[in-house]
Amino acid sequence: KFDISSNDFKTSHHTAQIPGLINVQTFFNNLSKTKVDEAQDFTALTKGAIAGGFTISSLMPIGDECVLSNSSELQKTHNNCHGKAYCDYILNALATPTNIDEISNIVSDTTSLLIPLNEKDPITLKDKMAEIIKFLNDWPSSFPVVADAKNADLAAFMFLADLQDRAIHITNVTTEQDISLIAMSKEKGLKVTCDVNVYNLFLSNADFDSKYLSSPSDVEALWNHIEVIDCFSVGATPFYVAKENGHESTSAGIEEALPLLLTAVNDGRLTLDDIVNRLYHNPRRIFEIPEQANTYVEIELDRKIDVVKDSFETSSLVWSALEGKTLYGHVHRTVIRGQTVYLDGAFFPEAVKGRDLSAIVNIT
Amino acid sequence: KFDISSNDFKTSHHTAQIPGLINVQTFFNNLSKTKVDEAQDFTALTKGAIAGGFTISSLMPIGDECVLSNSSELQKTHNNCHGKAYCDYILNALATPTNIDEISNIVSDTTSLLIPLNEKDPITLKDKMAEIIKFLNDWPSSFPVVADAKNADLAAFMFLADLQDRAIHITNVTTEQDISLIAMSKEKGLKVTCDVNVYNLFLSNADFDSKYLSSPSDVEALWNHIEVIDCFSVGATPFYVAKENGHESTSAGIEEALPLLLTAVNDGRLTLDDIVNRLYHNPRRIFEIPEQANTYVEIELDRKIDVVKDSFETSSLVWSALEGKTLYGHVHRTVIRGQTVYLDGAFFPEAVKGRDLSAIVNIT
Ligand SMILES: [Zn+2]
Ligand SMILES: [Zn+2]
Ligand SMILES: [Zn+2]
Ligand SMILES: [Zn+2]
Ligand SMILES: [Zn+2]
Ligand SMILES: [Zn+2]
Ligand SMILES: [Zn+2]
Ligand SMILES: [Zn+2]
Repeated sequence: KFDISSNDFKTSHHTAQIPGLINVQTFFNNLSKTKVDEAQDFTALTKGAIAGGFTISSLMPIGDECVLSNSSELQKTHNNCHGKAYCDYILNALATPTNIDEISNIVSDTTSLLIPLNEKDPITLKDKMAEIIKFLNDWPSSFPVVADAKNADLAAFMFLADLQDRAIHITNVTTEQDISLIAMSKEKGLKVTCDVNVYNLFLSNADFDSKYLSSPSDVEALWNHIEVIDCFSVGATPFYVAKENGHESTSAGIEEALPLLLTAVNDGRLTLDDIVNRLYHNPRRIFEIPEQANTYVEIELDRKIDVVKDSFETSSLVWSALEGKTLYGHVHRTVIRGQTVYLDGAFFPEAVKGRDLSAIVNIT
Repeated sequence: KFDISSNDFKTSHHTAQIPGLINVQTFFNNLSKTKVDEAQDFTALTKGAIAGGFTISSLMPIGDECVLSNSSELQKTHNNCHGKAYCDYILNALATPTNIDEISNIVSDTTSLLIPLNEKDPITLKDKMAEIIKFLNDWPSSFPVVADAKNADLAAFMFLADLQDRAIHITNVTTEQDISLIAMSKEKGLKVTCDVNVYNLFLSNADFDSKYLSSPSDVEALWNHIEVIDCFSVGATPFYVAKENGHESTSAGIEEALPLLLTAVNDGRLTLDDIVNRLYHNPRRIFEIPEQANTYVEIELDRKIDVVKDSFETSSLVWSALEGKTLYGHVHRTVIRGQTVYLDGAFFPEAVKGRDLSAIVNIT
């Protein structure tokens, strides 16, 4: 059994070795699209992942072309992902108002179920209490049912889960109200966990007038509830902030996540343990993710990056939401199953093939 | 202590004596209006009440001109109600997004607190979780906090109440989804009670294309969950159905309620005990309503009414939602504190003055 506390990373001067990180909410905008152009494909996304220190991407079907709700969409998703990945990945299914009877066809090829409850979602189960209850009841209890619910829909979702004493995970928490409600629910003993997109800890709508970023006071509240946050995630926020500014990049935000967090370590706001807990131990525990043998990331904790447009290997070369910021932290090398897949800007596509872990997870 | 089981009503042939009934959701559209015309005033409303067998009207501040959220509105409400009532009444306060600090000024003159959560409400606390939590916490725990929440807002409200183990009452339940959710919540041990407007048990949107009436299958589901329904109420449904059809009547639906329910007794769908439990015992227990001494109603259980426009004493003379229906049941006499206030169409305004019970309730 893998244990991080003293052995996971060996500090030498300002470098460290940490476990391969897990992005519990990976946004792949073209997940089940029929035709995907090369710049926006799964290879581009997973290159960003390994350059960012992530060795497992858990794909949450949130977004317009990002549906995985039946066998045909599973087939298309497989076509888009199999053999194209630089890192391992996990598929998660999408609940819709109409697929309750079809979902059994894809349950063994997916891990968790996402119930879309956010008003921004193109498909939503908002106000469909009976359907939500049925999904919560039907989905294998070994995996949490995930929702992107906010406000009253968050309280409602936690209520329905609590009626069944069922584990749930709230993804992309962004506001003081929602993190406070989750804090209270945890105190009451509910089986609820949550993640916060890294961008939402470091950018507010004072930086960009974006509907995906929160107010500065919400950002502050998220930091004040850092112990309530089980996982950090990349999520869709960087993609949509870039898109709002006229730039599309499948891997937007993935490489930036760890440097942003390591900058908080440099600032004394987080410890490296805080990060490893939220990007490795908690994700593994919550989503029952198996160990990747001989998989780790070498980082430099305090290497300075003055962010310009092309500071990161795979993100947009023409625009960065972080331009002008000074970050500390650098991914030096990413190793999967004993093979170096990334080293200082160089990718080694033949070194290892990313695997779909969904079936393995399901067997565990 | 008043006890109904064997002594409340003495059956002789087809007549019965039942306790003075309590309407837990009385809609008075002009509650806190500055100028109220005579036809729409509290006298008109409470005449309907005593003609309908109700000796206590609990006024829920739902609707456009129907706000009771601060001292000035309490004063106007007192002006509109004091000395104008044929029956006793209870005032309930309204929560708004801004009156949390003012509400203490009216708490001793009111009984329960209504939190408006329905999308039809002109003021709503929808999605204001922190505010709802504060109201649930601040309002005296001896009285349930009432809400007209539906769908996800209902689940959210029950969740917030459950976090505090707080008694709540859901008013005007109209759908299968909502009554099912309340049924599950009761089974789970939540302190939740509910009422259903009588019109919503006997009319559907197949009768009138109204946004206040539910589908026939919802109506059927309400009947199938009759044991989950703690109280019947008149509510705002009859007023708005009449208004949608071009007719305004303050007392719309009040006189019709008991004959509709007695018709269900004649049809074998309800017992008289079912009615008295939901219009007397449960309201008293849930809202801590004191006994009215020597107060009762004499009814004829099976007197036939072929409803025409002016079948009822106080409702609109030009239109009735029930026109063409055949009902069974008749209020013969209403007695408050030993005095007959209503007898076969005759009102006795000098016999008794309706009292504001709010302060008494608060002391009990
Ligand atoms: Zn150094
Ligand atoms: Zn496949
Ligand atoms: Zn808190
Ligand atoms: Zn390096
Ligand atoms: Zn008879
Ligand atoms: Zn007064
Ligand atoms: Zn049921
Ligand atoms: Zn009579």
